Amino acid sequence: MPEHVYEVIEIVGSSKTNIEDAVQNALNRAAQTHESIRWFQIVETRGYVENGKVAYWQVNLKIGSTIKN
Amino acid sequence: MPEHVYEVIEIVGSSKTNIEDAVQNALNRAAQTHESIRWFQIVETRGYVENGKVAYWQVNLKIGSTIKN
Amino acid sequence: MPEHVYEVIEIVGSSKTNIEDAVQNALNRAAQTHESIRWFQIVETRGYVENGKVAYWQVNLKIGSTIKN
Amino acid sequence: MPEHVYEVIEIVGSSKTNIEDAVQNALNRAAQTHESIRWFQIVETRGYVENGKVAYWQVNLKIGSTIKN
Amino acid sequence: MPEHVYEVIEIVGSSKTNIEDAVQNALNRAAQTHESIRWFQIVETRGYVENGKVAYWQVNLKIGSTIKN
Amino acid sequence: MPEHVYEVIEIVGSSKTNIEDAVQNALNRAAQTHESIRWFQIVETRGYVENGKVAYWQVNLKIGSTIKN
Amino acid sequence: MPEHVYEVIEIVGSSKTNIEDAVQNALNRAAQTHESIRWFQIVETRGYVENGKVAYWQVNLKIGSTIKN
Amino acid sequence: MPEHVYEVIEIVGSSKTNIEDAVQNALNRAAQTHESIRWFQIVETRGYVENGKVAYWQVNLKIGSTIKN
Amino acid sequence: MPEHVYEVIEIVGSSKTNIEDAVQNALNRAAQTHESIRWFQIVETRGYVENGKVAYWQVNLKIGSTIKN
Amino acid sequence: MPEHVYEVIEIVGSSKTNIEDAVQNALNRAAQTHESIRWFQIVETRGYVENGKVAYWQVNLKIGSTIKN
Amino acid sequence: MPEHVYEVIEIVGSSKTNIEDAVQNALNRAAQTHESIRWFQIVETRGYVENGKVAYWQVNLKIGSTIKN
Amino acid sequence: MPEHVYEVIEIVGSSKTNIEDAVQNALNRAAQTHESIRWFQIVETRGYVENGKVAYWQVNLKIGSTIKN
Repeated sequence: MPEHVYEVIEIVGSSKTNIEDAVQNALNRAAQTHESIRWFQIVETRGYVENGKVAYWQVNLKIGSTIKN
Repeated sequence: MPEHVYEVIEIVGSSKTNIEDAVQNALNRAAQTHESIRWFQIVETRGYVENGKVAYWQVNLKIGSTIKN
Repeated sequence: MPEHVYEVIEIVGSSKTNIEDAVQNALNRAAQTHESIRWFQIVETRGYVENGKVAYWQVNLKIGSTIKN
Repeated sequence: MPEHVYEVIEIVGSSKTNIEDAVQNALNRAAQTHESIRWFQIVETRGYVENGKVAYWQVNLKIGSTIKN
Repeated sequence: MPEHVYEVIEIVGSSKTNIEDAVQNALNRAAQTHESIRWFQIVETRGYVENGKVAYWQVNLKIGSTIKN
Repeated sequence: MPEHVYEVIEIVGSSKTNIEDAVQNALNRAAQTHESIRWFQIVETRGYVENGKVAYWQVNLKIGSTIKN
Repeated sequence: MPEHVYEVIEIVGSSKTNIEDAVQNALNRAAQTHESIRWFQIVETRGYVENGKVAYWQVNLKIGSTIKN
Repeated sequence: MPEHVYEVIEIVGSSKTNIEDAVQNALNRAAQTHESIRWFQIVETRGYVENGKVAYWQVNLKIGSTIKN
Repeated sequence: MPEHVYEVIEIVGSSKTNIEDAVQNALNRAAQTHESIRWFQIVETRGYVENGKVAYWQVNLKIGSTIKN
Repeated sequence: MPEHVYEVIEIVGSSKTNIEDAVQNALNRAAQTHESIRWFQIVETRGYVENGKVAYWQVNLKIGSTIKN
Repeated sequence: MPEHVYEVIEIVGSSKTNIEDAVQNALNRAAQTHESIRWFQIVETRGYVENGKVAYWQVNLKIGSTIKN
Repeated sequence: MPEHVYEVIEIVGSSKTNIEDAVQNALNRAAQTHESIRWFQIVETRGYVENGKVAYWQVNLKIGSTIKN
């Protein structure tokens, strides 16, 4: 990992299922515009509630992708 | 969401299963005294260990509920 | 819990499955050198991505264990 | 101010006008259930956008009120 | 401790004597409305000065109390 | 709001008038390249001073916009 | 801006009107003892409440001024 | 308290006895150059150890004093 | 102090008496495995409550000890 | 500097030599897609180690560039 | 070091060369008004960029100096 | 990097020369007791001053090393 230059972007993803799925959904969208995603960091975990139940899990991710030469 | 005034409370919930279940357990209790819960934010994730295994997942939540007129 | 003196160490664990499994893997290793692990706190959650999918979940844990007399 | 015991609550207020008005709106609601509000601290300032314009200013306040004997 | 759901409130207490006494004064007031206080965390320590001497010690506490079923 | 994936960018805006106007100026520019701005958060408020008077208010905003499918 | 050495001081200003005026009031006082104030950063925004209304806005500013040779 | 402009300085005080005495020692020195000290906040508490015992308690204080007209 | 290399460990100590005693208790245990403790920093102060009274003061310390050649 | 609107991006750069060179390498890459870089802030400094020696210095930069009209 | 009372000031220094030189330049200016500087802490590292190259390194320092009796 | 479990320790290193050398000195000592150091993060940079010049650069490092099976 050390030899690259990374671009870091922030994406918010959500899922009705769980935290891990919200992360993967954010990565799916990021992958449409960034070819070489290498890592992510969760910087915030929130959720929306309907009728007392978690309706959506929502994660803010920092996503690092290699910048090509 | 923008037109409401929210009250924000902090609740600690736990679960033997996983982080998502600990969140839902905290919301279940909060729902007994707050009618209109709308969102939550996880502000800390801890756990208790017995015999080397996670015995309880424990989350501190900020919980936002609409204040009625 | 209050009567003990705790040592707090930091361990990074990972898992191909999910966040909870990465925590348990970190605890498994910590247990090889620390007899009396009592609690942990997640201080960072990251992950590594291959072909657009989460390849590894990685958690930084503070782990508290009782120091024996 | 020093001789009192304060209760600190967190309220989110909003306004279509500006930040100061969002603060006052939050205080108006807090005053319905807390008699002796003395101070506040802004802990977050956000807003919602419609058609490129700020539609609502939203502030998270810590609000301190004297607890009576 | 792990099996409970906790409510976390924030109280500011003060004392002319020292930090520990300011904590206890905050707990005394919290106990009037919360039956089952279990722990606290000091989140800020301030004081007021008169004629160059500390007149009041003032502590902001997060206080956790068990929510009964 | 929960069903979307958001991109979060950071923009610094300024104004000779006040904080709210600096926010709107930042949003105006962001709108030139982002169609669906939904929310912002102020992460820093600074200003520049000339002859003892505030010459410019300057705000750092996190701006969230919906990513279209 | 880069060629100077700056001294950074912290001043708390207040105003009955709004946040911007509290900032300017703090700068007015700082200007009595610092000739070359160049920038400020708001590090905290608080207020005092009387009869449910904001009586004073209060801002903590870091203020940077050029140190002359 | 709200009508004043405050200057905030940072002083580190120490004591062989306890935390409260280290605070008072810092205030004693600050009082030699600042007439109207009104409040302080403890921003860090450290200590030095000799032969396994606390030799000195050391506190970093933010100290607020009224600026006279 | 500057010429040494320090190892920094984290220990949680407790006391029924006060904060200073909880610090010394943590240092006593640390001294059993670390010969040359030089300084500490309090990073968190908590407590446990029984019948409305502080039963234990608990401090998290970063402890620095010289590493010998 | 005050009259511009800035875009702030985050780039991770690395160097085998030192911290300053890692910063310049990050700026070199950022310059390929951003014409008017004006300032940066180091938000994290890390490194990778091989055979006990620093193999790469790695810096996370926030980079501000003027947005043209 | 423990027996002194320290005054802590904040100075911003800059250099065309590197981070260490920016620190020394800040100390040089601080030394003109403070006789007994003992330590510093870097609290922020920034820089200004011209034509894609670092033109100035800029550091915010907390500087501690002994207050004489 | 992702498949390992890491132990994270904190070491303070110093150098009369510069920040990079202080980092390497900390790593040299850590290497005496940890075989497989992989990365570090600088968490604080301080220094000691004599006669107005930097006498020692001092860095607090988090150091990650692979735990062998």
